[in-house]
Amino acid sequence: MRVALGLEYNGTHYAGWQIQPTQPTVQASIETALSKVANEAIKTVAAGRTDSGVHALQQVVHFDTHAKRSERGWILGLNSNLPDDINVVWARSVDDEFSARFSALNRSYRYLIYNRVGRSSLQHNRMWWLFAPLDEQKMQAAADLLIGYHDFSAFRAKLCQAHSPFKTVEKITVTRHDNCIAIDVTARSFLHHMVRNIVGVLVPIGQGDKPVSWAKEVLESQKRSQGGITAAPQGLYFINVDYPKKYDLPKLSAFPVVW
Amino acid sequence: MRVALGLEYNGTHYAGWQIQPTQPTVQASIETALSKVANEAIKTVAAGRTDSGVHALQQVVHFDTHAKRSERGWILGLNSNLPDDINVVWARSVDDEFSARFSALNRSYRYLIYNRVGRSSLQHNRMWWLFAPLDEQKMQAAADLLIGYHDFSAFRAKLCQAHSPFKTVEKITVTRHDNCIAIDVTARSFLHHMVRNIVGVLVPIGQGDKPVSWAKEVLESQKRSQGGITAAPQGLYFINVDYPKKYDLPKLSAFPVVW
Repeated sequence: MRVALGLEYNGTHYAGWQIQPTQPTVQASIETALSKVANEAIKTVAAGRTDSGVHALQQVVHFDTHAKRSERGWILGLNSNLPDDINVVWARSVDDEFSARFSALNRSYRYLIYNRVGRSSLQHNRMWWLFAPLDEQKMQAAADLLIGYHDFSAFRAKLCQAHSPFKTVEKITVTRHDNCIAIDVTARSFLHHMVRNIVGVLVPIGQGDKPVSWAKEVLESQKRSQGGITAAPQGLYFINVDYPKKYDLPKLSAFPVVW
Repeated sequence: MRVALGLEYNGTHYAGWQIQPTQPTVQASIETALSKVANEAIKTVAAGRTDSGVHALQQVVHFDTHAKRSERGWILGLNSNLPDDINVVWARSVDDEFSARFSALNRSYRYLIYNRVGRSSLQHNRMWWLFAPLDEQKMQAAADLLIGYHDFSAFRAKLCQAHSPFKTVEKITVTRHDNCIAIDVTARSFLHHMVRNIVGVLVPIGQGDKPVSWAKEVLESQKRSQGGITAAPQGLYFINVDYPKKYDLPKLSAFPVVW
């Protein structure tokens, strides 16, 4: 029997999603809890890997098990075996052909920047603090230049394992909410560090250090060395995965923005 | 020379504002940092005490010093000597007659409830999680019964040191933002635990366990034993203090609500 889970986590104290030999990871915590609740060894497949310090409002995973539990049973059993900074939001029985990774139609990330003169203790580890004023309209204009099917080599981490640097960015929206700037990005899939590297290009444009057209120059260079810095991990949230309607997976309600 | 500071803090790891002999407190952290930056022993007076686990977006304090620093100098110097979970938002030179405590015209708190079936790892230590659905309109109707000048003995902690149980509540608003319910309360001053005890009465009304009129019954009983529970500390944020305009103290911009 195959089960899908919606997961939320605060990534601050984890070396990312994927199991590592010596460091705590979200996947290791989930598989430990699952193996207890299922009373057998369980391996998970996730919609996307997240890096060290990156958070999730909705990561989706699937696993196979011989255990029979109600959806409520999975949620309650797992949450009582997970640390405070990881929780299951929903559980759903799915067809054996469903894959959290390969069935995904698209993935959405939100990047949060706290943009005021002084740092914020309440947003520490939750947003990237930038004190220089950002012009979100210029950032949106630059983001518009990245929409569509392109070679994103200039936005790709050295260690990226993807076969091809070509990706289709469906949406980038830049919105301001008082001191907070939210950058929402949706694509079917991403290269390693792609969202943080996109933010790293939008920021100098928003600060007026680079013109809006620089986003296109970076893209067309196809060289990581021509790109911007990699934005800090703590501002990044994996917020949604869409799957074909036939799987009828729960949706998070709206994603209101933070203080 | 007298200086006022606006402070923000995450109260999770502190035994509240006020200095304690053996436990870490926000006041002790601030006075340690101030004494380093001023190069002399500094004592602070705060607009309001906050309890263990309670946060602040804008606590206001004042102190006297012989040190001469620019406003920017105080902010940068203090923030580099404060832990990540406390920061100075603004500093301002003030007249010697100004008191962060006694000059305050009113104080505002926000209480945040996360209201969905499952717990939230990203809101852990930042909101009170209640899984039973809350009707925010009933909560507002009950809150309206508490507005004005009353004997708030039924909402007063045993250890409260105030001379009188009479207080004037100027405003209580209950608003829903997706899964989050925000309760904003403003008064010139409060009894100990008063906001959390008000929330403790609004919640069973919102859950339908008590009628709206129960808020008035509790108030008129003037007995703490007739009241509700004390809401959990991690949902409470000290968000604003108003002072007479002549002091020209900085205001926080709007206080957008959280995810």
